[in-house]
Order: sequence, then C-alpha cells, then structure tokens
Amino acid sequence: MEHMAIGRLKESDQDEIEQQMMVLEETTEDPYIKEPRRDPRLVVHSDTPMNAECPAYLLTESYLTPPELFYIRHHHPVPYLTPAELAQFSIEIDISNYDKGRHVLALTLDDLAKLEKVEVTTTLQCSGNFRRGFNDFQRTSGTNWGQGAVSTAKWGGVRLKDVFELAGLNDPIQAQEVGGMNHVCFTGIDEMKASIPIEKVFNPYGDVILAYEMNGQPVPRDHGGPVRVIVPGYSAVRNVKWVQHIKVSAEEADGPWQRGLNYKALPPSVTDANDVDISKMPPVTEASLYSGITKIESSRDGKEHVKAGDRVTAKVSGWAWAGGGRNIVRVDVTPDNGKTWHTAILKEGSNQRFGRAWAWTFWECDNIPCIVGEDGQIELASKAVDMALNAQPESCRHSWNVRGLGNNSWFRAKRHV
Amino acid sequence: MEHMAIGRLKESDQDEIEQQMMVLEETTEDPYIKEPRRDPRLVVHSDTPMNAECPAYLLTESYLTPPELFYIRHHHPVPYLTPAELAQFSIEIDISNYDKGRHVLALTLDDLAKLEKVEVTTTLQCSGNFRRGFNDFQRTSGTNWGQGAVSTAKWGGVRLKDVFELAGLNDPIQAQEVGGMNHVCFTGIDEMKASIPIEKVFNPYGDVILAYEMNGQPVPRDHGGPVRVIVPGYSAVRNVKWVQHIKVSAEEADGPWQRGLNYKALPPSVTDANDVDISKMPPVTEASLYSGITKIESSRDGKEHVKAGDRVTAKVSGWAWAGGGRNIVRVDVTPDNGKTWHTAILKEGSNQRFGRAWAWTFWECDNIPCIVGEDGQIELASKAVDMALNAQPESCRHSWNVRGLGNNSWFRAKRHV
Repeated sequence: MEHMAIGRLKESDQDEIEQQMMVLEETTEDPYIKEPRRDPRLVVHSDTPMNAECPAYLLTESYLTPPELFYIRHHHPVPYLTPAELAQFSIEIDISNYDKGRHVLALTLDDLAKLEKVEVTTTLQCSGNFRRGFNDFQRTSGTNWGQGAVSTAKWGGVRLKDVFELAGLNDPIQAQEVGGMNHVCFTGIDEMKASIPIEKVFNPYGDVILAYEMNGQPVPRDHGGPVRVIVPGYSAVRNVKWVQHIKVSAEEADGPWQRGLNYKALPPSVTDANDVDISKMPPVTEASLYSGITKIESSRDGKEHVKAGDRVTAKVSGWAWAGGGRNIVRVDVTPDNGKTWHTAILKEGSNQRFGRAWAWTFWECDNIPCIVGEDGQIELASKAVDMALNAQPESCRHSWNVRGLGNNSWFRAKRHV
Repeated sequence: MEHMAIGRLKESDQDEIEQQMMVLEETTEDPYIKEPRRDPRLVVHSDTPMNAECPAYLLTESYLTPPELFYIRHHHPVPYLTPAELAQFSIEIDISNYDKGRHVLALTLDDLAKLEKVEVTTTLQCSGNFRRGFNDFQRTSGTNWGQGAVSTAKWGGVRLKDVFELAGLNDPIQAQEVGGMNHVCFTGIDEMKASIPIEKVFNPYGDVILAYEMNGQPVPRDHGGPVRVIVPGYSAVRNVKWVQHIKVSAEEADGPWQRGLNYKALPPSVTDANDVDISKMPPVTEASLYSGITKIESSRDGKEHVKAGDRVTAKVSGWAWAGGGRNIVRVDVTPDNGKTWHTAILKEGSNQRFGRAWAWTFWECDNIPCIVGEDGQIELASKAVDMALNAQPESCRHSWNVRGLGNNSWFRAKRHV
C-alpha cells in the first residue's frame, strides 16, 4: 500500500488529499472490500478509511470500552491476513542501525506468546479529539470529532524493552549516548510509520508493549490486530496498528504521520500552513489534559414547570485524562462559566499508580445549583487538573491551530430541563 | 531544630505561625546569627527565615543564575557546620525499611567525591512563585512572590540511584512491587523533611542527584550546601537542602512540607482550609508550565511624543519553564489580551533533551505592534506551550487556591512608552 502513503506531498490538508486518493483507488479495485463489520452505534465521520467515534452517551458506560464501541481512526483500508498468512506472520526487531553485526530478529505470534506477558490499561485518544470545539470557533481541517475519539482498553502483550533485549540491545543508555539512537521507529502492515523517543521504550516505568490482546481477547483487526504497539500516555497515532517492523534509529520516522502537518500543532497566529517550516516543530507525543461531560441529570426541585431564571439542581458525570501518565488530581465543574466551582468526586481510575495513570479517570459531581437560561437550558463546564497542576484552559481560541489538534479547553455541555 | 518544626500544628496558615515562633525564639538566643551574607539586589520578603527573590530585571541576564542572585526560600535558620564538623559530615543512606539486614551506609563528602560525577542543569522554582498574581485577584496566604522565585544552576554530584546501589538496593522494581517501597524520604540538617516517588529516583532518565557543586563551586550554604538533593522537574520543596538522611519507605515523608497545607493546591471553591481533608490531596511534585516577561523595549516609530491610541512597536523577552522535564515547544505573546498572537523565538534552553528539559528556555519576540493605553502604557502577555501541548491558562481566577500555589496563568506585564 506504499502508493497510498501521502508523505511526499506538501499540501496543507493531507486528509483531503487522502480522501481523493482513496476515491481514485476505488475506481480500479475496492481496497475496502474486506473491512470488518462495525457496530451501528458508532458515529461515523468517514467510511473509507473508517473514522468513527463512540457516542458520548456510551463513552462512560464502562471503564473499559467494549472493543466494538472503541473509536476508530484509520488512514488506510484495514489489512487482512489469511489464516495461512497469520500463521507465518512475524514482527521484525531491527537494531542494525546501532549494531551492524546483528541480524534482524523475527518474532512470530507463537514466539511472542512464550515471552513474559504484561497487561497495561491505557486510554487512547486521537490528537484531533474534540476538534468540533475549535471548528465552532474558527474552521480547521480534518475530521470534525466530538468528544468520542477517546477510548480505553486493557492491553496484554510483551514489553518492547524485553523484545529489544532479546534482539541484543541491552544497554539503551550507551545506544543513545554513544550510538546516537534517539528513536524507535514502527512500520505497520499498511506502511503507516511513526516513532517515539527511545527513552519511552527503555524507561522501566514507561510500559510500552507489543499488544496481542485487547480486553482479554485477540486484538480485533479494527484496533491493530494481530499486534499493536501500545505507547501509554502518548497520542494514539504513535500506537501503531498492525505493526510489522520495529527499529532503533538516529532519526525519527519518515512520512506524514511523524513529520507532516497532520500531527503538528501550529501557533494560533498561523492560518496558512504553507507559511511555516513544519520541520522545526515537534510532532505530537504525550497528550495534554482533557475532560468530557457525558451525562447531565437535573432535578426541578419540586416545581412542575421551570422557566428561564429558575434554579434547578444538576448532577453531572464524565471522564478526565492527562497524557504522560500524569494522574488526575481534581475535576472542577462550573454552572456559571467559572464564577463558582464545584469539586467532583473521582471514581474509577483515580487510584492509578503515580505517574503511570495511563487511563482515564471517571468523575461525578452532584448538587450543583444551576440557573435556567433564556433557551430553557442549563450549561455546565468541566475542568480537570493533573498532578503537575496543569489545568485545562478556559477557551479554545488561544490554542486554536489550523490543523485542529489538541483542543483541551473546558468541556462545555448544555441540557434542556 | 526540631522545636521549630511546624508539622504538628493544624492551622490554616503555617507561615504566620512559623514567623511567630521565630520571634519567640529570637527572644532567647538568635538562631540567625550565623546567616550567610546576601546580595543587596535580592528582593527580600522576610529576613528570618530568609525569603528573597531575584529581581525581574536580572532574572534572564544569564542562563545560569549567579548563586548570589539565586532566589532563597528558607523555613529555618541556615545550618552552620564548623570545618571540623564538615570533615566529619556524612549522609546516611538507609534501606532498612526494605532490607532489615542492611546497615545504614554513611557517605562522607570524600566518599561522594570518589563516585562518578554527573552534572545536571535544572531550574528550581518555589511552588508559590508569582503568588502576587493570585493576591491581586483575591488574597491568599504566604509570601507575596513576584516572578523571581525561580532560578537555574548547573549542579554537580552523584546519582542517587548509584548511591542506593552502593547501599545494596539493586532491584527497585522488586523493592516497590514486592517490598512496597513507594517513596524515597529526605531529611535535612534542619529537620526539614520531604519525599519523592521511588520511580523518579530509579528512572534512568530521571537525573536525581546528590549535588555538592553549584555552577562549578561547592554548593553555598544558602542553597543547601554541603549537599542538596536535586530532583529535576519537581517543585523546589522536594529538592531538600542540607540533606543528611535518605531512606526508602512505604509512606511519604512526615511533616508539614509533605503532608501539610503549604504544599497542597486546594480547589478554587475552598476559602477556609479547615473545610477540607488535606490528607486526601496529593502534595506538589512536578511543576506545571510557567513563563515570565523580564524585558519590554518599545520604539515610537519615529514619533517624538506618543499618546493613548498611538501605535508603537515592542520587543519582549523572558523565560519559560515546564516541570517534569517537558520541553517548551512554543511561547506566544499577545499585545491585545489574546486577540492576536505573535510567536517568540526560542533561545538558550530550547535544545534540551527530549523529556529531560529540566531547565528554563529563554525567548524573545520582536516587532509586536501595540496600541498605547489610556494610562500611557502598553500591556503584553506571554503564554508558553509544552511538548504535551499543555498551555498556560488565561486567568488565575480558575486556579486560585487559598494557599496560593501554582499560579501559572499568562504572564502580563505593562510598560510606559
């Protein structure tokens, strides 16, 4: 599928080009004929490639997202391996950039199954999640995601660190400081490429794994099976699906997903991406701090009818997540655009290990007095705080960027009472 | 100095009590008689104990802060060791909580000098830096710091990890997962106590050291000499001065600096600290994201006189820093309260290692068009962005807390033209 890669183009909206190429492709042979069946409850933004989010009302129904409701953000048709191909499938671990004498280590699924298995519960989120909030302010390019391009699973597999040691890389500090190996690069079966800093892989508390299980079952094709790289706390684009080749390297991965515009957050002053030298801007790695409101219940305090100006009481719940493993230490909720704040109770996910809070935290906030607006609605906003005391910014206007990445401003939600 | 500790009290403003105790103490014998001489350019907020910041106009004069201008935030008189005491001085490394058979390892300064020396350049910042911004909005307790309770030095010493290995702790994962050792606790000569998570110490990329040098010279007494713990990316209170005893532990350190109100950021809804159970709130560890403006130059564009409404051009410079080693990827400057943004050029500090950007980044932004206000001044604000795309929030009102910790909202500065 090399011909579908969009890395050599220098357009300012690669997604649109990608769509056009897909259309072109379909005129010859339909590469989407072997797509998996999807749950009809998913909110589909595009079919080819599939981009679909989990609807907000289902997002916090369970702490682990059921795989069929796990959001999907594909760049290509989903690779299909026949049973025979699957039996032959192997992942190549390549340290030849560092140690030229080494052959590439090829690990089949059976080989992986024999190594020590670890489980990591982590939230994955598209870098463009909640782009809709930006678009409501000023148009950006890319999929108009609501809050649902985020989901959580328990992944089972082997530590990437262990696999590199098997391949012969035992001293990562020397590989980096003497050998100049600063990156670990991944390539998927679909030729998707991305990389992460080598420190993340070899940090004993980094928890990077090659996952062959998702919530206790083989990883579904839609979520990267047979094997997906899990890079906890990083933007989902670095969690390469259908991974096939892994190498250490002095340079970050080639291609648009690592070096292109789609995964770089430009300054708010830039409205034409051609005006800036994106090679000087770092790609997305760790995610920032997000929250979402998924449910608002309101009580009319005994009144039969409520009108604008009346006071009602609300109970609100949702999720919060910070990248980089930073624990959520608080979620504040406001019914009056920040004049007053109510502290939520943190629920599932609040007791994750220090600095390894890879997955979201659920929260609930009750007894919030709200005044009904002229439109008959109440409006609430949530703001999470992480262990480093980072807080979500009030407005998206100051982090707005032409590609619409990283909208982590307060999550605002309205409800009719 | 145990009698000066304030940990057993449960008052809502420990600093005021501390001051009162100091006054009481002075009536019997002056514990401050052996204080070091200080540079008169420091902005002194209190004498006993010394709390003084670096004036803004000197803050970015050099990337490494000269030790005499390095801010000082003491809780006690500065410990004084005679030359004979110094020759006998040793630091105790205690793993007996984990391995009862082990004796405490005592390391003299000569012992430390024989171990591998490493150097780490790191910024230290008081958790209350720029509390003044909060106080301008609504009063908090504690020192009314401007932006100058932040400074940077190159520290030389030995890895704490290496020292623990010498003491016999070679498998930190097992010490944590089997032995329950989640913390490393420090005690200073002054009985000041604080702790950090064990992961930070044993992360090979964490760079925690026992420093005996500051900018190439023995650590001055005012900055923690003979030996100070350096915990890069963490709030300065965890970088314990005059460290004397270090242990692994299942529990975090006792005492007010770890468990008390002074280092916990309460929700903005709380105005009386007695209303909340602070034992349920995490202590400050990593710092969030800050910036400061230290210099504004303006050109009148050839005009002899300027008046309100005239346009002038400004050049602004300053510093930015994120805790946790997160690199600064951008600084935006606005002359109109966020309507328009100008991207600064990142200077010294912009090429620090990925995720190990322990020290600040200097920046400069030129050719900013500004409109002179009714008061004859121009106002500018800076907003930094870190590698995880966290950004400083616009206003301090939504992170305001009764103890005044962590005010990292946009840095606003005015200047007469």
